[in-house]
Amino acid sequence: MATIKTLNESEIPTYTDDVTIHVLQDVELHSPIMIEGLPGVGHVGKLVADHLIDVFQATRIIDIYSSHLPPQAIVVDDCTVRLDRNEIYACKLENGNDLLILVGDHQSMTNEGHYILCSTFLDIAEQFGVSRIYTLGGYATGQLEDTGTVIGAVNNPEMIEELSGYGVEFQENEPWGGIIGISGLMLPMSMVRKIDAACLMGITSGYIVDPKSAQAVLGVLSQALGIEVDMQALEEHAAEMEKVVAKLQEMQQMYESMSSANEDLRYIG
Amino acid sequence: MATIKTLNESEIPTYTDDVTIHVLQDVELHSPIMIEGLPGVGHVGKLVADHLIDVFQATRIIDIYSSHLPPQAIVVDDCTVRLDRNEIYACKLENGNDLLILVGDHQSMTNEGHYILCSTFLDIAEQFGVSRIYTLGGYATGQLEDTGTVIGAVNNPEMIEELSGYGVEFQENEPWGGIIGISGLMLPMSMVRKIDAACLMGITSGYIVDPKSAQAVLGVLSQALGIEVDMQALEEHAAEMEKVVAKLQEMQQMYESMSSANEDLRYIG
Amino acid sequence: MATIKTLNESEIPTYTDDVTIHVLQDVELHSPIMIEGLPGVGHVGKLVADHLIDVFQATRIIDIYSSHLPPQAIVVDDCTVRLDRNEIYACKLENGNDLLILVGDHQSMTNEGHYILCSTFLDIAEQFGVSRIYTLGGYATGQLEDTGTVIGAVNNPEMIEELSGYGVEFQENEPWGGIIGISGLMLPMSMVRKIDAACLMGITSGYIVDPKSAQAVLGVLSQALGIEVDMQALEEHAAEMEKVVAKLQEMQQMYESMSSANEDLRYIG
Amino acid sequence: MATIKTLNESEIPTYTDDVTIHVLQDVELHSPIMIEGLPGVGHVGKLVADHLIDVFQATRIIDIYSSHLPPQAIVVDDCTVRLDRNEIYACKLENGNDLLILVGDHQSMTNEGHYILCSTFLDIAEQFGVSRIYTLGGYATGQLEDTGTVIGAVNNPEMIEELSGYGVEFQENEPWGGIIGISGLMLPMSMVRKIDAACLMGITSGYIVDPKSAQAVLGVLSQALGIEVDMQALEEHAAEMEKVVAKLQEMQQMYESMSSANEDLRYIG
Repeated sequence: MATIKTLNESEIPTYTDDVTIHVLQDVELHSPIMIEGLPGVGHVGKLVADHLIDVFQATRIIDIYSSHLPPQAIVVDDCTVRLDRNEIYACKLENGNDLLILVGDHQSMTNEGHYILCSTFLDIAEQFGVSRIYTLGGYATGQLEDTGTVIGAVNNPEMIEELSGYGVEFQENEPWGGIIGISGLMLPMSMVRKIDAACLMGITSGYIVDPKSAQAVLGVLSQALGIEVDMQALEEHAAEMEKVVAKLQEMQQMYESMSSANEDLRYIG
Repeated sequence: MATIKTLNESEIPTYTDDVTIHVLQDVELHSPIMIEGLPGVGHVGKLVADHLIDVFQATRIIDIYSSHLPPQAIVVDDCTVRLDRNEIYACKLENGNDLLILVGDHQSMTNEGHYILCSTFLDIAEQFGVSRIYTLGGYATGQLEDTGTVIGAVNNPEMIEELSGYGVEFQENEPWGGIIGISGLMLPMSMVRKIDAACLMGITSGYIVDPKSAQAVLGVLSQALGIEVDMQALEEHAAEMEKVVAKLQEMQQMYESMSSANEDLRYIG
Repeated sequence: MATIKTLNESEIPTYTDDVTIHVLQDVELHSPIMIEGLPGVGHVGKLVADHLIDVFQATRIIDIYSSHLPPQAIVVDDCTVRLDRNEIYACKLENGNDLLILVGDHQSMTNEGHYILCSTFLDIAEQFGVSRIYTLGGYATGQLEDTGTVIGAVNNPEMIEELSGYGVEFQENEPWGGIIGISGLMLPMSMVRKIDAACLMGITSGYIVDPKSAQAVLGVLSQALGIEVDMQALEEHAAEMEKVVAKLQEMQQMYESMSSANEDLRYIG
Repeated sequence: MATIKTLNESEIPTYTDDVTIHVLQDVELHSPIMIEGLPGVGHVGKLVADHLIDVFQATRIIDIYSSHLPPQAIVVDDCTVRLDRNEIYACKLENGNDLLILVGDHQSMTNEGHYILCSTFLDIAEQFGVSRIYTLGGYATGQLEDTGTVIGAVNNPEMIEELSGYGVEFQENEPWGGIIGISGLMLPMSMVRKIDAACLMGITSGYIVDPKSAQAVLGVLSQALGIEVDMQALEEHAAEMEKVVAKLQEMQQMYESMSSANEDLRYIG
């Protein structure tokens, strides 16, 4: 049986439960939209979610600890530490939409932990009366090319038309191998709780952190939220990464020509 | 202690239990035969079981979720999702036999989960008064040749004569390394519940999805069930796979000749 | 909390507990000696324990199942199956000594399972009033030579002198990396229950099943038990394995000469 | 739910709980400082902590067993064995400071076990009224050079100035990947219990046991404790290891020149 503990103000956590929830601040939100951007393929979801927190100066309201997260301390700017955790931020957009943004250092290290943490996130979503969930991620193709494509999957077919209007591509049975981790799990697990959810996946190589793909996802998401988002930080990050990509492409070509040279030798041998 | 939860109609599942059983439809079956075809070596069992569901237009009656299954969402035809799960289908054959067919996306990811899920499947089998179980699988030889052989193992030696009559081969202590996963576990675990069970394993290379081996297993199974089964879809699939096999055989020969060339060089060096 | 279940006669096991104990036969034993020979390095312990069961026609009295053992079925001689398990055999020697022999298909697949199964074995040992435990294993050196050496470790220093008299070698802090698995765990875990225990480890390469090393261990053990044991089956097995060893030694020499040839080339290059 | 059992005098441990605590001796300590030196990168922390136990002839007061520690027996000097465990030693320094030193054979083998063991260590720290904790470790750079640098992280920023005075370097967000294992976990987990804690990490290559790095950490720690510590044993150990380091550096250079030679060949090919 999963042990999920919500801390009282006076309680000292042992962090040995499946989940330890620490509510930092009470906020009133109006049918908020939840956005999940935990680390994953190309860190696409994380880049977008962290960017939103920055741009909208969202407030951290809940910390979620778990014995299924890596047993490690994160060192922060002032050389102090905190436990590896997942965090929920809240903010109110100018257009009246409220957001809950779920980010964190890692996803669960265990199979069971994924289910338990996902269920915990959805308990919190229900408490806030979340009206819709967007889970963000990358879709690895192994190709070092930048297509700007965003693939979608939903837990309610009625969302497809709307999201297609924002440029999301829907392809039968794609991703073919399923959507692994929290971004995937949240869709069917929120469906039974009658919360609409969509997963937005930016096409990415899978080899690098990909702010370019994050820009594409953010483009779709900002339309879905009916807001404009300053992308400067992501653009700068993408410009930096382009040098890495160029280097990787060079290495790939070199490797390919070496391999073929090598094969030639072998056939001769 | 394993937590096995059967959902009430009004209950919202958290999917954090060892097993969550969702009964979709009540059906009356007469001493049905259970057929297990979860994914495994060469996907032989899965190909046969999925084919039977298609051909006999079986009805999905029970969904089985588990925190021991991979934490992922499966994307289906209309770009909506469902949780990774195991499923039980039911159908009534023209010759009066009733079938329960167990299929799914994956087997358990954990050691303990295999035992818990197998026990759950057998609880369901008992509730339906299952008279016999066939578990279907592949037996990997590492050889890219198509022998059409089906190896058998049983939990009751009285079944050997009958199954031999359908062309099943029984070899002492074969498979030597045991039968791993649900197809193996179900035999001894159903024996103590006094349900006869046989495992039918199609010989396969172990490198590819093998519809040819699935045809061999289906051949045996249709005799055992006293029915004829249209194999067209499997035949078409097998024809496609033959190109893959030819390519693999070519690669294997090339690799072997390269290896020997290489060795020659080394001795000279 | 570990769930350890002892089956009633009428009870149908689900095999989902940490341990399921099935008592097959009640026997009266007089301060028996327990011998553990589960699979491990070079299968040395298993070879000796299985040999003793054969030679003394020991009776299987207890089956031990566990969800920490591999989820698989073992196929036996008549093509029927049984669940992967550990077994306890009993026999009465001519010199008045009684034996309990612990064997099995595998050791635990999980960390925790090793502790739980070891504790279960010792509960059984206590119930029978076991006076001494010998755990048998191999000690891998990576060298393909046959030294016939048996290394010892004990949970009571008073045993050292006696065992040295049978040719067991005791070396400070050896094996340096500790004794992994049940053969190791049983010594300290029986010490607190005030049962003397020794681990006898035959020197072995670690590359192959080693009946030669098993003969050395059996030589020591038969002195310790004050009996003579017919070793013919082990000798025949050892003669067969010598061909394998010769082949491995040849390969090793070839590999070494190739490596040096290769290195020469590289330096030149 | 974690099962943490403290043994009564008369109780016989089964060692199947998450944690089994065996108190060997009652001691009165005055606001002791706790030092953690479990095995980790370069065994830096372990070398320092074991050295302190030697030099100050500390007394072993508590043994901590766990089913999350490797299932193995450690063979000690007289060829007897003990279970793999963690240990707490106590000593009183001449300058009035009392120490609790935490050492052991291994850290937890499982994710959850790290959290449970860390919480257990802190329960003990609280019982003794520990005033401060130093966790000791290595910080792997992959470089075979000896810088004598010690990096620090704290759970209370007020400690930075003091520790900087002892030569500890504090760098924003370093180590970048976090501090993995007990040395990391103890900082945030003691913070909520209002115990100040610092992690002192000696720069090390990560390839070898590094007594040189341990000397650097001990240098800092002895200042922090206001004592002088005889370092002779560590110095001798370091002198021995220098031969290993020299050999490794030679191999590294040889490998690098070979690689470049090889690359040249490939480009030509």
